[in-house]
Amino acid sequence: MSSFADVGLLDPLGFLAGDDLDLVSDSAYLAAMVTVEAALLGAFEDSGVGVPGGAAAVENLVDALDIRAIGAASAAGGNAVIPLLAALRPLLPVPVAGLLHTGATSQDVVDSAAMVVAAAVRVRMLASLADARRALAALADAERHTPTVGRTLGQHAAPTTFGLRMAILLDGIGRAADALAAVDLPAQFGGSVGTLAVLVDRFGVDRALAVRGAFAARLGLTDRDAPWHVERTPILTVGAALATVIATTGRLGSEVTALAGTDFAEVVLESAPGEGGSSAMPQKRNPVPAVLLVGAARRAPGLLGTLVGAALGAGERAAGDWHAEWQPLRELLRLGLGSAAAAARVAADIRPDAARMARNLEATGGAVHAERAQAALVPIVGRTEAARLVRSAVAMPGPAVPGAFETALIAALGDNPVAAAAVRVACAVGGPIGLSDTFIDSVIARNDL
Amino acid sequence: MSSFADVGLLDPLGFLAGDDLDLVSDSAYLAAMVTVEAALLGAFEDSGVGVPGGAAAVENLVDALDIRAIGAASAAGGNAVIPLLAALRPLLPVPVAGLLHTGATSQDVVDSAAMVVAAAVRVRMLASLADARRALAALADAERHTPTVGRTLGQHAAPTTFGLRMAILLDGIGRAADALAAVDLPAQFGGSVGTLAVLVDRFGVDRALAVRGAFAARLGLTDRDAPWHVERTPILTVGAALATVIATTGRLGSEVTALAGTDFAEVVLESAPGEGGSSAMPQKRNPVPAVLLVGAARRAPGLLGTLVGAALGAGERAAGDWHAEWQPLRELLRLGLGSAAAAARVAADIRPDAARMARNLEATGGAVHAERAQAALVPIVGRTEAARLVRSAVAMPGPAVPGAFETALIAALGDNPVAAAAVRVACAVGGPIGLSDTFIDSVIARNDL
Amino acid sequence: MSSFADVGLLDPLGFLAGDDLDLVSDSAYLAAMVTVEAALLGAFEDSGVGVPGGAAAVENLVDALDIRAIGAASAAGGNAVIPLLAALRPLLPVPVAGLLHTGATSQDVVDSAAMVVAAAVRVRMLASLADARRALAALADAERHTPTVGRTLGQHAAPTTFGLRMAILLDGIGRAADALAAVDLPAQFGGSVGTLAVLVDRFGVDRALAVRGAFAARLGLTDRDAPWHVERTPILTVGAALATVIATTGRLGSEVTALAGTDFAEVVLESAPGEGGSSAMPQKRNPVPAVLLVGAARRAPGLLGTLVGAALGAGERAAGDWHAEWQPLRELLRLGLGSAAAAARVAADIRPDAARMARNLEATGGAVHAERAQAALVPIVGRTEAARLVRSAVAMPGPAVPGAFETALIAALGDNPVAAAAVRVACAVGGPIGLSDTFIDSVIARNDL
Amino acid sequence: MSSFADVGLLDPLGFLAGDDLDLVSDSAYLAAMVTVEAALLGAFEDSGVGVPGGAAAVENLVDALDIRAIGAASAAGGNAVIPLLAALRPLLPVPVAGLLHTGATSQDVVDSAAMVVAAAVRVRMLASLADARRALAALADAERHTPTVGRTLGQHAAPTTFGLRMAILLDGIGRAADALAAVDLPAQFGGSVGTLAVLVDRFGVDRALAVRGAFAARLGLTDRDAPWHVERTPILTVGAALATVIATTGRLGSEVTALAGTDFAEVVLESAPGEGGSSAMPQKRNPVPAVLLVGAARRAPGLLGTLVGAALGAGERAAGDWHAEWQPLRELLRLGLGSAAAAARVAADIRPDAARMARNLEATGGAVHAERAQAALVPIVGRTEAARLVRSAVAMPGPAVPGAFETALIAALGDNPVAAAAVRVACAVGGPIGLSDTFIDSVIARNDL
Repeated sequence: MSSFADVGLLDPLGFLAGDDLDLVSDSAYLAAMVTVEAALLGAFEDSGVGVPGGAAAVENLVDALDIRAIGAASAAGGNAVIPLLAALRPLLPVPVAGLLHTGATSQDVVDSAAMVVAAAVRVRMLASLADARRALAALADAERHTPTVGRTLGQHAAPTTFGLRMAILLDGIGRAADALAAVDLPAQFGGSVGTLAVLVDRFGVDRALAVRGAFAARLGLTDRDAPWHVERTPILTVGAALATVIATTGRLGSEVTALAGTDFAEVVLESAPGEGGSSAMPQKRNPVPAVLLVGAARRAPGLLGTLVGAALGAGERAAGDWHAEWQPLRELLRLGLGSAAAAARVAADIRPDAARMARNLEATGGAVHAERAQAALVPIVGRTEAARLVRSAVAMPGPAVPGAFETALIAALGDNPVAAAAVRVACAVGGPIGLSDTFIDSVIARNDL
Repeated sequence: MSSFADVGLLDPLGFLAGDDLDLVSDSAYLAAMVTVEAALLGAFEDSGVGVPGGAAAVENLVDALDIRAIGAASAAGGNAVIPLLAALRPLLPVPVAGLLHTGATSQDVVDSAAMVVAAAVRVRMLASLADARRALAALADAERHTPTVGRTLGQHAAPTTFGLRMAILLDGIGRAADALAAVDLPAQFGGSVGTLAVLVDRFGVDRALAVRGAFAARLGLTDRDAPWHVERTPILTVGAALATVIATTGRLGSEVTALAGTDFAEVVLESAPGEGGSSAMPQKRNPVPAVLLVGAARRAPGLLGTLVGAALGAGERAAGDWHAEWQPLRELLRLGLGSAAAAARVAADIRPDAARMARNLEATGGAVHAERAQAALVPIVGRTEAARLVRSAVAMPGPAVPGAFETALIAALGDNPVAAAAVRVACAVGGPIGLSDTFIDSVIARNDL
Repeated sequence: MSSFADVGLLDPLGFLAGDDLDLVSDSAYLAAMVTVEAALLGAFEDSGVGVPGGAAAVENLVDALDIRAIGAASAAGGNAVIPLLAALRPLLPVPVAGLLHTGATSQDVVDSAAMVVAAAVRVRMLASLADARRALAALADAERHTPTVGRTLGQHAAPTTFGLRMAILLDGIGRAADALAAVDLPAQFGGSVGTLAVLVDRFGVDRALAVRGAFAARLGLTDRDAPWHVERTPILTVGAALATVIATTGRLGSEVTALAGTDFAEVVLESAPGEGGSSAMPQKRNPVPAVLLVGAARRAPGLLGTLVGAALGAGERAAGDWHAEWQPLRELLRLGLGSAAAAARVAADIRPDAARMARNLEATGGAVHAERAQAALVPIVGRTEAARLVRSAVAMPGPAVPGAFETALIAALGDNPVAAAAVRVACAVGGPIGLSDTFIDSVIARNDL
Repeated sequence: MSSFADVGLLDPLGFLAGDDLDLVSDSAYLAAMVTVEAALLGAFEDSGVGVPGGAAAVENLVDALDIRAIGAASAAGGNAVIPLLAALRPLLPVPVAGLLHTGATSQDVVDSAAMVVAAAVRVRMLASLADARRALAALADAERHTPTVGRTLGQHAAPTTFGLRMAILLDGIGRAADALAAVDLPAQFGGSVGTLAVLVDRFGVDRALAVRGAFAARLGLTDRDAPWHVERTPILTVGAALATVIATTGRLGSEVTALAGTDFAEVVLESAPGEGGSSAMPQKRNPVPAVLLVGAARRAPGLLGTLVGAALGAGERAAGDWHAEWQPLRELLRLGLGSAAAAARVAADIRPDAARMARNLEATGGAVHAERAQAALVPIVGRTEAARLVRSAVAMPGPAVPGAFETALIAALGDNPVAAAAVRVACAVGGPIGLSDTFIDSVIARNDL
């Protein structure tokens, strides 16, 4: 029997989730499948047609299952449910074995189990994301007036504040978390072709509806009013929400990796001892959790795309399309768990270096203020002249020294104290910039958890 | 100057949208950019700081613009706004030219224009999707008791009804349409680095807020309380909603292509004269709109994935990531428009062939009833014996003749009139199956437009 | 410590590769990393600067390593090499420990190990693919004159032969396998930033080159003349080759799933006992390996896309991009192994049903011969008249009965024995069709292993 | 009739290809389709069964075609060939019209035309890439000893040379270009279902083979010995090669965007006047072509993935999968053209700033030399002591001043002149580093065009 295992060696991010990582383990999936079968028996009990103790009898068997044997046997039928049932039945009392899986099909179990796993993962992700949001909100607030250079296309563009940068990151993560929280996670229950014919044959329409409701309730999932065996928007919706979380936390990683780079050095990522070391370079302090966030986010597009591409299957169960969903959804959940945990870590560990930011802000000798200076001059000297003056000041020769742009521009103005005063204001640093305080306040308010 | 043009030769689906296709033309994008610049001038007017008539003056220039020249010039600055402004300014009265674009940056214009285009596209998509939903609801209702074979992994599995199949298709399209309708389409307005510094410098905080609100209102977009220059969830959200529509309509195409296939022949797609012909085979009636729906849906994953992958950019404007969004979002809008139109066409043109469905349902000599027959026997003869009996009947030799399974199974039962009666019920055809009516009613109710 | 494991429960295809699946296990990756470190020590020995027995000492430690501990510790440094070295050093003689990893960096070990794993996987894939190719070649040859209906866009189009269909499948798989065989798998050895500075400092240029050559030779990898730490075409190339194999075997799966469908029934997939069963429907014989091939192929685009997207990283080691490659490449190798094995199974198990093919070929009453009949009439009655006649015959009323088209067309011809004879030839069935024999022979010749 | 057009407004990169961009225009595709039909008529002439002047008669009609009408009509049949034929026939002499398209099917024309377009694009891409390679080779050679800081995960890691960095970029682009040059571009010719039955019926096997050969020869494409109507590796192969070019030139863009960033400032990208300007910030000099290269490369994964995902179609022509290939392949060709042109521009315009590189190399006070220093000490003081000493020197307090690390380390050594000398060597700057010269020479030699 194959001893294949992916235990995380190629996906270090997952370990940042600690024991939560086990929520997306094959063991967790197998346990969820057992839970689904038990919930169906329980739903029969709840509806007065079950075998008392049936649900509990099944739940108790989780630890008795040989996951490797079930996995190996899954190739014959194409999914793990057939060997799971074969393993469970001999271990159950005959009446329970007889009722087990009644009315259901493999897809009901696989899909509902995936939703059970997703629900558990979501709880932990939202907790980590809440930590991340609180930390980012605190940073946005505390550093709201810390001036820093805004960069567009890698170029110094105009001043902003470190707090606003954090608020915009927070905005994305907060919106993604809220969207994830709002995703509907339905139970799947349609029987072999989505009619629940066997269930109704056995128990009648009313009881079948009751069973379906009790089944979903026991699983903590939505009691959807129609099966979704080939209507895969539930998979797309949760996949898109996970990918969005991973993308927004990935951007946190991307931003922090850049800012913690030696050439920017505007942020230090507080590290645990031993973290961030290199196998070869003793001086390095790699911002590892931030880097891993980027790595996760680079993988999300392909995984989400696979889910979208698998949604076309015709008939009452898609040949291959359905099977193609399982691993990518698990990988999105795995990356989502790790990303949420890493985002909480990164957000908590950001140590801004305001002095270095101030120094970087002067790297262009103040030309970073050119846009505001020019805009300030327009009402005074006109658009064309303002542009000409600023161009001349920007083009000043020599190395960038602090204040050089302001000095050159004021000199170019000649005797124009009103204009000079306007330039001085435009080149001043400190306090809110534009609507930065308003933006920060709005975002913090929307993330007040 | 390049005379490059994609006019749709490689994307026939788009033409099914008729003139609506023009909504995603480069001309529409350029017009939207002009509209955005005009809306900003109008917002200044609304806030008492504008030049009267400024907005109108800009709007009037749309037809005077040379889109090819602007396109060719866009390579120098990386986007079309810089040459657009250069083209507009000389044509405007000086005070208007002076106020044009004040406080804004290229990204404000490009992003807001994309949202303006998306909003217009959405209106038309939702109208087409409403047509598709009504047609599918009517089919689901009318054919709710038309028996047809349910197929899983391509195999005849168990009976279902044509109406339920339509209802499940409707469910997906309906949910996707509702999700698209709920997507927030915000205006972008943050200035060069997201602070709106120049706007506030010029007009103060309160008036800047007023301008921002008026700008969004004029564009019919949400007045978002923070810029999203690098917070790209608005792009991901609309992209995911479009991809979900395209996937669900793609599944309609996939299903209809299969059912209209010569070997199934359960559906004929009513064609316009000359449609569906082949360049070589005179007898063919290709279900072209259905095929094109599939083709569109195969493209959605890559396009959505690109948007997700472009969301990581660091700094205050992403180098390349931002630029990578434009064409994929347009392609999603283009495919979305075409898919919605084609779905309306396909849904209206489905002609179910109930007689052929009945014949197909008997292709296995009735073995398609095996699951229900076995389930019916379990309470009477026990699980093991039921399985043995059904296996023996399924394994009957000879060609599949209608009723063969039922006959063989009843024969195998020996003298057991109760069991025989149960088998007859399980193999009967007609009327609702399981919860099919309930499912159909629920889905129709949710799609009652 | 996390007990996370993916043991294959969500990826049944892998189990079709049997023990070969272990080649892509985390254990195999860890063993490969150890092999890489040992190869470096061995290369020092080969070049006269090593510690005798060093390579062997390291290789011997594979079983002593705690893979879970190394995995958990990998989160601190972002990859498994740092904790691997920390685990190995205390277990080695001091001189060996001192020389371990000299001149290398983590990426050298991770990348070279991935290539070692890929090389081992490729050997097994090519063996399975050779089996598949032989089986398909035999089918193409044996069934070269078995008439069957050619379908385009799901519609019966014109006759072809089952052998040609198999030959075209073979052509794709053969080309993909040959391309995989030709892929260059280089060792990675560049040191911390790609200069091999430490190695040269210690041993000089000539000996450094010798060490590099011996290192690659010991690993059975190409001794590339420059490092590829950020030049990722080796990853893209192997990824594209794997995805192409998976796509071509996926098409085998797709074709067989369709042909084995109840409505086509032109192929039966010989099953092992118990295979293809359903959890609910006793009559079903799902073509499981074919379905799983499709499932794999639906995942390949996203995985390959991720590798392409991860190739942009700037600097001397990419932050996140590099990390994003590991799991997708493993998944491609895993799917490749499973797909090759499944393709061999499917190709060996195809049982064509010539009688059913003949029946299906008559489903249109012979209208499937319309193209050839019309073409045969063109030189006799002219293009316009030929088209009119064939249209009239195609449009004949009533159910499709065998030969109806031919009869109707000949009747429409009136007294034209030459034309009638031409029509009879065009509607005849059996023997080669067009160039089918030539095509088949060519493809078989190119796949003569 | 729709007036939709994408003229490049959302894809500025394309304009960098100048008039070459027209090679991927819809007009070019339509012209290629006409060329394919003409080549078939010409192949008949070459084989003695044609109408003299037929090919020329068709070629002459290119300019008479109404591309918008053909596009609009393409929705009825699903591709442009049917309306193209309908437009051509009335304009041709009757015998030519009668022979037009004989034996062919739409797919033969669409696929062959795509290959004709790809062949033309490749010629221009390879020319631009050759320019890029020459420029990068010159830079690698000229700057082979220019010391610069090597960065891993964004951190200063160890010194390298600017020339080596250029050589590694060159290596990727060179390999990608060579791989593109080696891609086989076959003609497609199989008739309606891949048998060429009509052709053989009309002209016999030998002449059919002659026609096929002449057809491919006239198109300048490979005369493949079997049709590839559903064997899509030709599409995957050219797609993967294009994506690899785009990824490697994208990395050039990514690297240059980073190095030209204000915080690095190690490279200036020579600009044409007016290029790189901002709509709002007068001081900015955006490295636009480099940024657009990144944008292109972010799109390649989704486009390539779509081609891979479209390769699964069953039957003799895939319903939707085939249609899904057209636009993505065009977009890859379009991005490929633009990327090759932009890479040539960027490579020619790189102006390295050696002084700034030297300054950046000292940003860590020399700690960037820690790896080499430590490695140099190992043979002298042992591994543990070397590590301790270097750690202490790295941890020195105070601001980074040039040489601080070296000074601190030598001080920590106490009286050990041998060790101090070794440290001095390890911290020295200038000349080749490690194998940098060897690497550079190898890469340049492989790119000697």
